[in-house]
Amino acid sequence: AQLSHVRADGAALMVDVTDKPVTKRRATATATLITRPDVINLLVAGELPKGEALAVARVAGIMGAKQTSALIPLCHPLPLSGATIDFAPGDDRVVLRATVKTTGVTGVEMEALTAVSVAALTLYDMIKAVDKHAVITDISVLAKSGGKSGDWSTE
Amino acid sequence: AQLSHVRADGAALMVDVTDKPVTKRRATATATLITRPDVINLLVAGELPKGEALAVARVAGIMGAKQTSALIPLCHPLPLSGATIDFAPGDDRVVLRATVKTTGVTGVEMEALTAVSVAALTLYDMIKAVDKHAVITDISVLAKSGGKSGDWSTE
Amino acid sequence: AQLSHVRADGAALMVDVTDKPVTKRRATATATLITRPDVINLLVAGELPKGEALAVARVAGIMGAKQTSALIPLCHPLPLSGATIDFAPGDDRVVLRATVKTTGVTGVEMEALTAVSVAALTLYDMIKAVDKHAVITDISVLAKSGGKSGDWSTE
Amino acid sequence: AQLSHVRADGAALMVDVTDKPVTKRRATATATLITRPDVINLLVAGELPKGEALAVARVAGIMGAKQTSALIPLCHPLPLSGATIDFAPGDDRVVLRATVKTTGVTGVEMEALTAVSVAALTLYDMIKAVDKHAVITDISVLAKSGGKSGDWSTE
Amino acid sequence: AQLSHVRADGAALMVDVTDKPVTKRRATATATLITRPDVINLLVAGELPKGEALAVARVAGIMGAKQTSALIPLCHPLPLSGATIDFAPGDDRVVLRATVKTTGVTGVEMEALTAVSVAALTLYDMIKAVDKHAVITDISVLAKSGGKSGDWSTE
Amino acid sequence: AQLSHVRADGAALMVDVTDKPVTKRRATATATLITRPDVINLLVAGELPKGEALAVARVAGIMGAKQTSALIPLCHPLPLSGATIDFAPGDDRVVLRATVKTTGVTGVEMEALTAVSVAALTLYDMIKAVDKHAVITDISVLAKSGGKSGDWSTE
Repeated sequence: AQLSHVRADGAALMVDVTDKPVTKRRATATATLITRPDVINLLVAGELPKGEALAVARVAGIMGAKQTSALIPLCHPLPLSGATIDFAPGDDRVVLRATVKTTGVTGVEMEALTAVSVAALTLYDMIKAVDKHAVITDISVLAKSGGKSGDWSTE
Repeated sequence: AQLSHVRADGAALMVDVTDKPVTKRRATATATLITRPDVINLLVAGELPKGEALAVARVAGIMGAKQTSALIPLCHPLPLSGATIDFAPGDDRVVLRATVKTTGVTGVEMEALTAVSVAALTLYDMIKAVDKHAVITDISVLAKSGGKSGDWSTE
Repeated sequence: AQLSHVRADGAALMVDVTDKPVTKRRATATATLITRPDVINLLVAGELPKGEALAVARVAGIMGAKQTSALIPLCHPLPLSGATIDFAPGDDRVVLRATVKTTGVTGVEMEALTAVSVAALTLYDMIKAVDKHAVITDISVLAKSGGKSGDWSTE
Repeated sequence: AQLSHVRADGAALMVDVTDKPVTKRRATATATLITRPDVINLLVAGELPKGEALAVARVAGIMGAKQTSALIPLCHPLPLSGATIDFAPGDDRVVLRATVKTTGVTGVEMEALTAVSVAALTLYDMIKAVDKHAVITDISVLAKSGGKSGDWSTE
Repeated sequence: AQLSHVRADGAALMVDVTDKPVTKRRATATATLITRPDVINLLVAGELPKGEALAVARVAGIMGAKQTSALIPLCHPLPLSGATIDFAPGDDRVVLRATVKTTGVTGVEMEALTAVSVAALTLYDMIKAVDKHAVITDISVLAKSGGKSGDWSTE
Repeated sequence: AQLSHVRADGAALMVDVTDKPVTKRRATATATLITRPDVINLLVAGELPKGEALAVARVAGIMGAKQTSALIPLCHPLPLSGATIDFAPGDDRVVLRATVKTTGVTGVEMEALTAVSVAALTLYDMIKAVDKHAVITDISVLAKSGGKSGDWSTE
């Protein structure tokens, strides 16, 4: 891999991408919030103490994606050109999926991962008055396209 | 639970905590990053392309904790009075643990969860040049103290 | 009024409120977005190009309120203890109203005004693909309580 | 209009602009702060309690324009290439006007509107010790150029 | 000194100040920008390319002070209760001085230092079109009061 | 110089760079933190109260560089394409050096200066429990390349 970037003393750096080509890029990431069936019922019915959980989490995830380079120290800033977040409620869980796009020199997998993470944390915040033992799990990248390493998908 | 906060139309709100007492509060949360043993070796040896991963992730997690109320829409701002993040590298994973403290009117579990989430995302960013299939999992609250609902711990 | 704060050279300052007492405070502000009846129909039906406008604007307003002291240069930071935003759609307009609370040394009218302003700008952004001549108007404080100048309301 | 972006379930999204061409763009927006003649006199003379109101509001508006995509949830980030804000004090009011420029794929009307809104809120904050009943009104876009929908101006 | 906070592995932490008493605190810091006499003349006359340098730098410094805990990783967030910044132009330099106040559990010297640093960087930005060799120097704390270590002043 | 940008009334503006060409740019800046030899020993040994000072300051400087246009009012936002920060500890001081790169329409000297300033302030914060009289000095640009004014270096 790109181990040429390692510095002799191991010091952290924002890797130089000045000479990489600008291309259209896309990444999809997922996360899962595990809770209880009765909490899923409240969530889907919009009856949680803090209100309409899915709408709030969707906004939080999109706004979070735009803050990625401010949160992740060595991440390059990228101008996002599109973002969607969807939720698939199951019996005792919600599966989140975010797709993020840019036209830039680096991939957007960190932005997609940040989107689902912040959205999942927001769902956690919305339900924590009724479930203090929820778990966020399976945060990973499902597909990526547009970079030199080639397109790939786990699906 | 606190269902008295639900509004008739289900609209989102920042719940009114004006009359809650100020107490000393603490929360501990955890997250796990799953990768490959050879990546753990690079990480522990400080030989990852972007540099000293654990130090960078620790700083990112602490700074992320301070941004919790800016990231989670309905979270109340809290003045953090302390934060630590620790990493336990295993064969193919790193287990993260964050403890956050405040003197305030609401609990700090969202701050602890945000700390481990941002730290785990930072580790993901540090290793993604050598492992594009890492997974962040098991994000949950381990212990909480200081609120009216009583102290508790899963350990 | 508090003209004792003026400096000889008129230079800007964040006024010293160190010695003011901490009290519970509340402020309510309003704003109005004027558009066309057919746009209001799309907005209420949730059929705008960018999606569910009222839910997004409500989240934006609450998050904007928390950024007040970062946006308004001489505003003191305040820990918000509650915030709600409501929308009353009319024939060709939406009237917004936000109520914000804190326990602190200064009033929260700037936070309430920022909440309705950011929410109204968000509505503008949601409808601008179908109406490029919308107007935001009548941004003002409706009521304030908790400070030394006494409670008041325009209603 | 661009109703092709609506999703079946009306869920919010950051519209995909990946394939839009990069062009030079400009937008001008206005806002009006209405107060009392004696307050305008203090403001113009630089004798308000918090200091030089117009200079502070100008800086706040320019900095606010740069925060547009962080405040408005579904707004795309744009690299501003220029911004000016001007004030025309009248008998009992100040008319604000901001012009913002970019080279990008979407228009900058939200940036211009955010600039005048934050500048007007800042003026409100500067005068609120002497006028608690000021009103911000007539926030609208005056002219826009550079996009596919053609140049236009209300003047 | 407070070496009890060192962790065995030297890992960074936000030191626990939960049990420290809340007191009124104040700190004064200074910085100096060194340039050329003709640049000072342009600066004082308000004839620099980007405009009224001192007013812009004063606002930037006050706003920067409010961002201290977001910029300095291990700094505790503090609610500032007052801030002033003053400039003393000399023959070939500007001496900056900021005083910041809070009611809190830790000192505000980092906030005062951040205020003068951001204000000095802003002056640098205002003059860099006419002087690319300016230097910012002598950033230090002049006085501090309100903490357990006693009041002190270098003056 | 570029005095054509001055406005008749001296009002501040974000200078219009819409028509400037996009080029690869680089800037290097330096800062020096002066303290005591015993403090340098603790710092190099990683035995300071708040932990591993150089790693934390490096991360803070890189993250600070990304916030430059949010801190410096009239600075244009630039997408950084690389950043490194290095520390040279001496007998009683640490000399910091940052190199920042972008592909954009304006130079990155403000980003490099902000990087070393925030890193130096972070070092100050790390050592202030053991030295309350440290000084940050000699903040300046060492080299710049890529703009129309030609490449230059002070070294």
